[in-house]
Amino acid sequence: MKEKFAERMEMGDSKEIDECMAHIMKLTTMKDVISFAGGLPNKEVFPIEEMKQVSKKVLEVYGGLALQYSATEGEKELKEAIANQIMKASGIEADPDCVMVTCGSQQALEFSGRVFLNPGDVVICENPSYVGAITAFKSYKPSFAEVKMDDDGMMMDDLERVLKENPNTKFIYTVPDFQNPTGKTLPLDRRKKMIELADKYDVLILEDNPYGNLRFEGEGLPAIKSFDKNDRVIFLGTFSKIFCPGLRIGWVYADKQALSQYSLVKQSVDLQTNTMAQKEVAMYMKMFDLKANIEKIIDVYRRKRNLMLKAIEENFPKDCNFTKPNGGLFIWVTLPEYMDASKVLEKAMEKKVGFVPGIAFYANGGVRNNFRLNFSNTGDDEILTGIEILGKVLKDYEIN
Amino acid sequence: MKEKFAERMEMGDSKEIDECMAHIMKLTTMKDVISFAGGLPNKEVFPIEEMKQVSKKVLEVYGGLALQYSATEGEKELKEAIANQIMKASGIEADPDCVMVTCGSQQALEFSGRVFLNPGDVVICENPSYVGAITAFKSYKPSFAEVKMDDDGMMMDDLERVLKENPNTKFIYTVPDFQNPTGKTLPLDRRKKMIELADKYDVLILEDNPYGNLRFEGEGLPAIKSFDKNDRVIFLGTFSKIFCPGLRIGWVYADKQALSQYSLVKQSVDLQTNTMAQKEVAMYMKMFDLKANIEKIIDVYRRKRNLMLKAIEENFPKDCNFTKPNGGLFIWVTLPEYMDASKVLEKAMEKKVGFVPGIAFYANGGVRNNFRLNFSNTGDDEILTGIEILGKVLKDYEIN
Repeated sequence: MKEKFAERMEMGDSKEIDECMAHIMKLTTMKDVISFAGGLPNKEVFPIEEMKQVSKKVLEVYGGLALQYSATEGEKELKEAIANQIMKASGIEADPDCVMVTCGSQQALEFSGRVFLNPGDVVICENPSYVGAITAFKSYKPSFAEVKMDDDGMMMDDLERVLKENPNTKFIYTVPDFQNPTGKTLPLDRRKKMIELADKYDVLILEDNPYGNLRFEGEGLPAIKSFDKNDRVIFLGTFSKIFCPGLRIGWVYADKQALSQYSLVKQSVDLQTNTMAQKEVAMYMKMFDLKANIEKIIDVYRRKRNLMLKAIEENFPKDCNFTKPNGGLFIWVTLPEYMDASKVLEKAMEKKVGFVPGIAFYANGGVRNNFRLNFSNTGDDEILTGIEILGKVLKDYEIN
Repeated sequence: MKEKFAERMEMGDSKEIDECMAHIMKLTTMKDVISFAGGLPNKEVFPIEEMKQVSKKVLEVYGGLALQYSATEGEKELKEAIANQIMKASGIEADPDCVMVTCGSQQALEFSGRVFLNPGDVVICENPSYVGAITAFKSYKPSFAEVKMDDDGMMMDDLERVLKENPNTKFIYTVPDFQNPTGKTLPLDRRKKMIELADKYDVLILEDNPYGNLRFEGEGLPAIKSFDKNDRVIFLGTFSKIFCPGLRIGWVYADKQALSQYSLVKQSVDLQTNTMAQKEVAMYMKMFDLKANIEKIIDVYRRKRNLMLKAIEENFPKDCNFTKPNGGLFIWVTLPEYMDASKVLEKAMEKKVGFVPGIAFYANGGVRNNFRLNFSNTGDDEILTGIEILGKVLKDYEIN
């Protein structure tokens, strides 16, 4: 069989990432492990009782239409709810006809690669960047140019350097709010500067915003898209982190010309996203208060972040640095340079604690002294126990 | 924006198909048109009341897990139900671990192109073949070699000719039961012969079976996969035609080595299929009788097929030929060679009747005197009225 596979299935240099992803999936499903690995929301915050009412209501109101094929671009009522309730809150004057519903934002990432990337095109991304996006883009054989980050995300002078050096750039891929994996947030002035640079160097921006609504403190920032005057920004959103990931409802927001390309791809790839799930999300937003649901999630995640930060401060060696995110799901740990997070993981796994080594998040690899901790999907006690164990593993590593 | 799109988005020679698909979609959603165009199931046969119970039960039994991320390959209970209840009935000794759940079988078709096709590889297909498969494969730049059909589907001597002439063949794509678009079914001896030829010429078979369970009369035939001793057959199935298409639940069945490639693709493309929808389908099969549901569908579709065949006999000019399918959703009409179905469609649309011109179903184009009629999704009266109008349009065309 093996000799029948297409050449594109030979993953080559993404083996490290594949292994890492396999690690994440394995850790996520193992039962006796305290896992800080996945990016899973906490299932305790899912509105189960509300969903019972919602699914019944959708079948009552729409009958067979809820179970029938429907438009490739998505259900009208959901596109309207996305545009008017969610995107407007990020400062975007959104047109529902510029929304296309996707199977989670992972599909929107994959489609973005498919719509825009020729082999050899350059994708500019944060250093580190989101592993799922890197993997999705890699199918289309771009090269990656990484931009240095400080505590406030991408550094604009370094972005300009990278843009100058890479005239073949197709788009800048960025997660501006509570970035995966670092938890960092791009400040207002840099958002404006990024648009300026994109205009100057004539490149697109792919703004991936799964976490922006999960802000624990401080004022929310307008999306980069809100400053876009020249249809340069494609905006990706999802209900996975503010509602339920298992329904697989995300979206892409783009000007009509680009959206028609996404729609062609969607038609050929899977026709459309689940009709009933789309209607359920829209019905939930009509019957209940999505904002209140998000507040509930924020309360839980803020508590867990606080617990984890405090435990890290108390248990990790002093030469380990870590981010203090104001939202999202992740804390990013930087070890002294001589340490290898994969080796730390080996030791930690012996003691039944898991995380994701940072190597997977570097589009061009090479950096080994970081790891990502997820705080949303672990019990409060497990956070304390797990971080204590990790602290010991790190201290032992330093001695040896 | 246009100059930013990847080269693969320039569809080139599939423009005819794209236009046709656009036609289908438009016809499907237009309200005052009698449309025989789409391949939509009839929403009157969807189990709405049962789905209310099922969705409630899933949330009661699984709670938050029904709304959480889950395994890329699909939910265990659904894979078991597919293997044990559906595939065994087609004569396949199916292993649930060889099933991967997809977003409809369209996604399984797309993935098959991605996993197997290098540019220039040959896909052998029926002449005509399913337009959605052709479109999905075309993204991966194969060439198509078409096999002649008689009333019993692919002719095996012509298949061997095509295999001999195309040593670069990767797989034979076939819809053996109530084929889309012709409604034809491959008999038992040809199924065995196809496996023999695939072994002899060392090619794979992609067996796409969305309609096999919708047999109106006669004995069901074992799947081609059931004769496969050398892991040559990849089998695609779906709940779209025997349950509800809006849930977007299909599957691919393949040996473990191939399945792991499909799984890598799925992971990168959209992570997984909707958890709740998967659990709902499995729960439906546990709480209710899927076979009884299929019997109900068959009763409705058989009646509609009979109505349409009778109306065609009474209204169409005598030199128009048409298939008399024993199942499925479609009748295939062949006009005298001098007639162009696209022109017939123009006239028919003026009188508010629609269908799909056959040209879209020919992988290499060129044949213009066929069209496809769907009988599942139209009211009984509309079938009579629509076919009467079509008959008049055809007779007028012949006179002029």
